[in-house]
Amino acid sequence: IVTKLPAVGTTIFTVMSALAAEKNAVNLGQGFPDFHCDPKLLEDVTAAMAAGHNQYPPMPGIPALRDAIAAKISAMYGYSYSAAAEITVTAGATQAIITAILAIVRPGDEVIVLEPCYDSYVPNIELAGGSVVRVPLTPGTFRPDFDRIAAALTPRTRAIIINTPHNPSATVWTEAEMRQLEELLAPTDVFVISDEVYEHMVFDSARHESVARFPGLAARSFIVSSFGKTYHVTGWKVGYVAAPAPLMAEFRKVHQFNVFTVNTPMQHALAQYMGEPKPYLELPAFYQRKRDLFAAGLAEKTRFKLLRSEGSYFQCVDISAVSDLSEAEFCLWLTREIGVAAIPLSAFYGDGFDQRVVRFCFAKKDETLLAALERLARL
Amino acid sequence: IVTKLPAVGTTIFTVMSALAAEKNAVNLGQGFPDFHCDPKLLEDVTAAMAAGHNQYPPMPGIPALRDAIAAKISAMYGYSYSAAAEITVTAGATQAIITAILAIVRPGDEVIVLEPCYDSYVPNIELAGGSVVRVPLTPGTFRPDFDRIAAALTPRTRAIIINTPHNPSATVWTEAEMRQLEELLAPTDVFVISDEVYEHMVFDSARHESVARFPGLAARSFIVSSFGKTYHVTGWKVGYVAAPAPLMAEFRKVHQFNVFTVNTPMQHALAQYMGEPKPYLELPAFYQRKRDLFAAGLAEKTRFKLLRSEGSYFQCVDISAVSDLSEAEFCLWLTREIGVAAIPLSAFYGDGFDQRVVRFCFAKKDETLLAALERLARL
Ligand SMILES: CSCCC(=O)C(=O)O
Ligand SMILES: CSCCC(=O)C(=O)O
Repeated sequence: IVTKLPAVGTTIFTVMSALAAEKNAVNLGQGFPDFHCDPKLLEDVTAAMAAGHNQYPPMPGIPALRDAIAAKISAMYGYSYSAAAEITVTAGATQAIITAILAIVRPGDEVIVLEPCYDSYVPNIELAGGSVVRVPLTPGTFRPDFDRIAAALTPRTRAIIINTPHNPSATVWTEAEMRQLEELLAPTDVFVISDEVYEHMVFDSARHESVARFPGLAARSFIVSSFGKTYHVTGWKVGYVAAPAPLMAEFRKVHQFNVFTVNTPMQHALAQYMGEPKPYLELPAFYQRKRDLFAAGLAEKTRFKLLRSEGSYFQCVDISAVSDLSEAEFCLWLTREIGVAAIPLSAFYGDGFDQRVVRFCFAKKDETLLAALERLARL
Repeated sequence: IVTKLPAVGTTIFTVMSALAAEKNAVNLGQGFPDFHCDPKLLEDVTAAMAAGHNQYPPMPGIPALRDAIAAKISAMYGYSYSAAAEITVTAGATQAIITAILAIVRPGDEVIVLEPCYDSYVPNIELAGGSVVRVPLTPGTFRPDFDRIAAALTPRTRAIIINTPHNPSATVWTEAEMRQLEELLAPTDVFVISDEVYEHMVFDSARHESVARFPGLAARSFIVSSFGKTYHVTGWKVGYVAAPAPLMAEFRKVHQFNVFTVNTPMQHALAQYMGEPKPYLELPAFYQRKRDLFAAGLAEKTRFKLLRSEGSYFQCVDISAVSDLSEAEFCLWLTREIGVAAIPLSAFYGDGFDQRVVRFCFAKKDETLLAALERLARL
């Protein structure tokens, strides 16, 4: 069978997690917590199932959860979406992104991605028949380079995918950068797919600049977020999309024929749990402490050069002082020989660009981070 | 925004369920049970969550569930799939079908659908850039017409989608029909997407003729099934696909970038629950009794002409003796004025073909079926 996706293999996350399991390595590769979620959330699922919420929910999600999402966005970012017409619950953020792409990208349309980027974007665009236009973030700093983005815009540009807080670099776009994007797109019809799955993990003095804060962007954007990341339940596969009604109408046409609906008991539990904003309001401090613990250990015990983690649950390091191996070979070696799994940044580039940087995930128990640091000290 | 799916509105199931709720009608429209699943299955979810199974599972599904699926297919249909390479757990059957289509259908490829058919197939093919080739099932009997299927095959035919037990007609393909398909496709490279979500609901002397029973078909087929339908948990959105390794490799390339993975605690619960085959082995008798109860009531209390329900949880009736309205108008009228929701078969045809037949779902408590019959007696 001739493949439709010749460049696609198994995702780097699957490969590294499998190797980490095989080698009994501390898995700081794939981004997921190794600690438990709030037991209350589990009780809410059990209660929802016992109450009989096990059949098809409404196609766009149960109203209570959509209301809670709209209320959260309004409280955090000051933009009011209609829960009825502008919010849809998805089977995770990945499904949200492909659905948005299938809904708007037509054969021949160009879609701009900013590299490094999450590995689903490019095959998603290809499956929709679109052309991928790769624009690098500024080497070294990973800041958006608006001259290059401007140069990439053409009359065929249908959409741009942005991601802040950024996976893998852990940068967070500033208000000024968001305004620059807003201005740049103002004279165009370009849509924005804004991957904001790490929205509640922003550190120090920074704040999350959702496109919802910028009316000129919100009017043309699909916002994508993830309950799995916010509530430590990556395996539940529940996320959401917010978009203006005309965009959401197109999104739902595809959504209803992609997954149709999303797990009912989890939706009820999340609706219940979101009544209390504390868990996501406390998340920045929770992860900042872990970042600081891990970063301090790396600085003390290794010769890695640390990049600044402004948000997300990732810490990138430059490996030049430690190894001559390529990023990918270094990660394999580190997993096999040192017993710590990491992800090479080259996996986030179409051409495998190697800048000697690898990514660690610090969404782990303190003891896991300390065990990893102990092993890394051997380097 | 110019839509990519101009023919697509909100699905008939969503429309009729919303109207039924508004009018307080007995909802025999959308196919889902109004009774509860086995409480043991819920306990298995709670136990899985408590055991910490809340993070990403492996991309193709947890091994225990894939093993259980492979064992079931082997026991029921005598074909051994490799759990490692040939089974993938999906976010329901709808997601399985679009993923198979996106994996194999290239722009310009033709895909044969047999009308009437489930409403996601056609937009799924269109999103992949394929051309839909509609072949009607024999009017009146809904049997496959192999002369017409043969006439529809061209060098550009990439796949055919079949569905037995059949939604909406409730027919079940015979062994002879499956052999005819096997022979017809033997000289071709055409793939089969076999929607078998009602595999465990086959009545009287019939048996389910999975493509897995026919080596010439199995070698070219994606089998799609659904735990929601089999275990009375349509809202959990867990299904699976089985296919030969080279086909599954292509399927997984798309799957990993569509939903990536499927709800972890539900997967663990289903793996546990499948250890005991009794629930699905008893399902035919369970639904046959409901079919008989409902059909007897219709025969006694209404002037509908009943079509034979050989499988699935649907009962179709000819409305000619009862009403002059179109199928769609009749269903709206029946919901509003009589208080019983049904689905018009015209919703399963691209051209809205109206043969005066509507579909009732009998996956309901006996009291629900009796309440519906009482209302229908007023006709
Ligand atoms: C969907 S698996 C990858 C998890 C993740 O977002 C990451 O590690 O970057
Ligand atoms: C996915 S909603 C429709 C349920 C169903 O399969 C049907 O009613 O035909």
